[in-house]
Amino acid sequence: MGQPNGDSQPKGDVPEDAPEHCPGTESEQAGQASACEGCPNQQICATAPKGPDPDLAAIEERMRTVKHKVLVLSGKGGVGKSTFAAQLSFALAEADKQVGLLDIDICGPSIPKMLGLEGEEIHQSNLGWSPVYVEDNLGVMSIGFMLPDPDEAVVWRGPRKNGLIKQFLKDVYWGDLDYLVIDTPPGTSDEHISMAQFLKATGVDGAIVVTTPQEVSIIDVRKEINFCKKVGIRVLGVVENMSGFQQKLGAFTFRKTGPDGLEEDVTEKVLAEIRAVAPHLEGLTACTEILHASGGGAEKMARDLGVPFLGRIPLDATLSRAAEEGRSCFTDYKDAPSSLALKAVIKKVLQTVEQA
Amino acid sequence: MGQPNGDSQPKGDVPEDAPEHCPGTESEQAGQASACEGCPNQQICATAPKGPDPDLAAIEERMRTVKHKVLVLSGKGGVGKSTFAAQLSFALAEADKQVGLLDIDICGPSIPKMLGLEGEEIHQSNLGWSPVYVEDNLGVMSIGFMLPDPDEAVVWRGPRKNGLIKQFLKDVYWGDLDYLVIDTPPGTSDEHISMAQFLKATGVDGAIVVTTPQEVSIIDVRKEINFCKKVGIRVLGVVENMSGFQQKLGAFTFRKTGPDGLEEDVTEKVLAEIRAVAPHLEGLTACTEILHASGGGAEKMARDLGVPFLGRIPLDATLSRAAEEGRSCFTDYKDAPSSLALKAVIKKVLQTVEQA
Repeated sequence: MGQPNGDSQPKGDVPEDAPEHCPGTESEQAGQASACEGCPNQQICATAPKGPDPDLAAIEERMRTVKHKVLVLSGKGGVGKSTFAAQLSFALAEADKQVGLLDIDICGPSIPKMLGLEGEEIHQSNLGWSPVYVEDNLGVMSIGFMLPDPDEAVVWRGPRKNGLIKQFLKDVYWGDLDYLVIDTPPGTSDEHISMAQFLKATGVDGAIVVTTPQEVSIIDVRKEINFCKKVGIRVLGVVENMSGFQQKLGAFTFRKTGPDGLEEDVTEKVLAEIRAVAPHLEGLTACTEILHASGGGAEKMARDLGVPFLGRIPLDATLSRAAEEGRSCFTDYKDAPSSLALKAVIKKVLQTVEQA
Repeated sequence: MGQPNGDSQPKGDVPEDAPEHCPGTESEQAGQASACEGCPNQQICATAPKGPDPDLAAIEERMRTVKHKVLVLSGKGGVGKSTFAAQLSFALAEADKQVGLLDIDICGPSIPKMLGLEGEEIHQSNLGWSPVYVEDNLGVMSIGFMLPDPDEAVVWRGPRKNGLIKQFLKDVYWGDLDYLVIDTPPGTSDEHISMAQFLKATGVDGAIVVTTPQEVSIIDVRKEINFCKKVGIRVLGVVENMSGFQQKLGAFTFRKTGPDGLEEDVTEKVLAEIRAVAPHLEGLTACTEILHASGGGAEKMARDLGVPFLGRIPLDATLSRAAEEGRSCFTDYKDAPSSLALKAVIKKVLQTVEQA
């Protein structure tokens, strides 16, 4: 008791064999499904499929009607990956593309909420599972549609997750698509390896990696980009989200701390005063950095790793509001700084994908 | 091809058996380690340990010197869980408690960065793995200390994760602790079940659940709270992080959009003007909601679910900065709105834990 026992691994051994053998070996053999053969972790990775996998041919067949496949990745959760995937899909649909949005973030599917599809159910036809349609040209598939109780925790053991991802790729009837946008879970977990294996044979245009300016997110994104390189997925570019906050001065509320330490709302008084003495101030944009980029942010990281930088999307209330309301930010909020920035980023993505 | 095959599960079946059998069965039997026996998913959960697990006794023995164990959970990533865990640990240490911080967020360990311990290594003594110490009374253990290359993606297959969590609980020599704060990965995944199983026998004071006001985060937190109820972990309370943004007006920069559409930085001009015509405005606090709470936020959710609400922590630049710099927000930034709010939340946590 109290001492590391015989099978305790000395420092250094614990992580080394995991990344060096498993993902590497699997990535090299991706698509062949006998991923762990010859891998020293075989006893650990025993959950990976053995022998040739007939489902891979089914996935390839199913994906034949999909022109472009774009993954949206992030190293860390909460950086706005699903918001980006949702708004990218809205933007593509508004540009008259035929779009599918596949949410494989199995433990926390946010896509139904962000597309305004909560409570919807999917149906099965003789062609496969039918996506839920927001518009004629925007279909959505998410594990969120299958949960009997949205408040219930769903704990998926690894092999079950892989099975579900495979089914999503194999059994959803998308029809002809210009774009399939795939929202993935954060990080580089079992699901990512599976997905890479399953999709490799069908061809993926690449991945868009979303981060915040914070070093804690950038650290994880570096890993994500190295993962993409390892498994042979092209990085279409990096998006820095929540990159500075900006808002018209007139849209703030104002508080004053009195001598008694109590706070008083003085918004009306302040706005009246501004209007009286310096009315042009009200329409100015007030800007600030909220998330501190101690390491130079995403642009520097992208340069260091030799991948494209797609741009910065400022933090403002409208993008979060559009996501909460399940709507496109390009309709009601199209002049918001975040919408304009997002539009520019998406334009770059399309150019990259369609030129290729 | 193109049709769901024989083993495709009809809608509804896919999620139902996962939450109803696996975690339930396991939670009821937590601590006995023969979790999946009799579970219809046995072939899927084959990775769970079989038969009585001698390590559980070792964990119980190891945890005997730890007075209080507090888990920090979130349903979704990026809500500030690790930042909260880090600052909670700093605050406890400043209150002269003997504190251990255990980071089991295996895929994206942020704790080394947030405690200013990047590049540190752990050492092994005959008593076990030694934590890295920030102060004499604040020791930290994280998978982050074991990674040979911080940029490398570490993909942990489920069983390997469970093994590592077990080792962290079993083999780290903490010595006598007043508090062990455990930062967990977001969501309700394999790791959470394992942790619940492993810790159940040793007694856990409870879990603090961190969320943002956004409904997309609240949805996932509901699941997290139900998970805690299911596995018998007490919810100490819910913290709403990033709850509104506030900053002194004088700390903003200002931009003006010219008739040509170009933006101009007018900060100096604006601040000079404010000082001239209405100097008292500069010190006012400008407030705004950035993250939209379409569903009433965390307080309403906590009330609905019958768990305590611990308070709101506003979004401001200082907390993010403290996290990036790996420092306590209670030293240099102690008067920032976020620090004051965090302090009040932590006070409530301590009262709850120590009264119990």
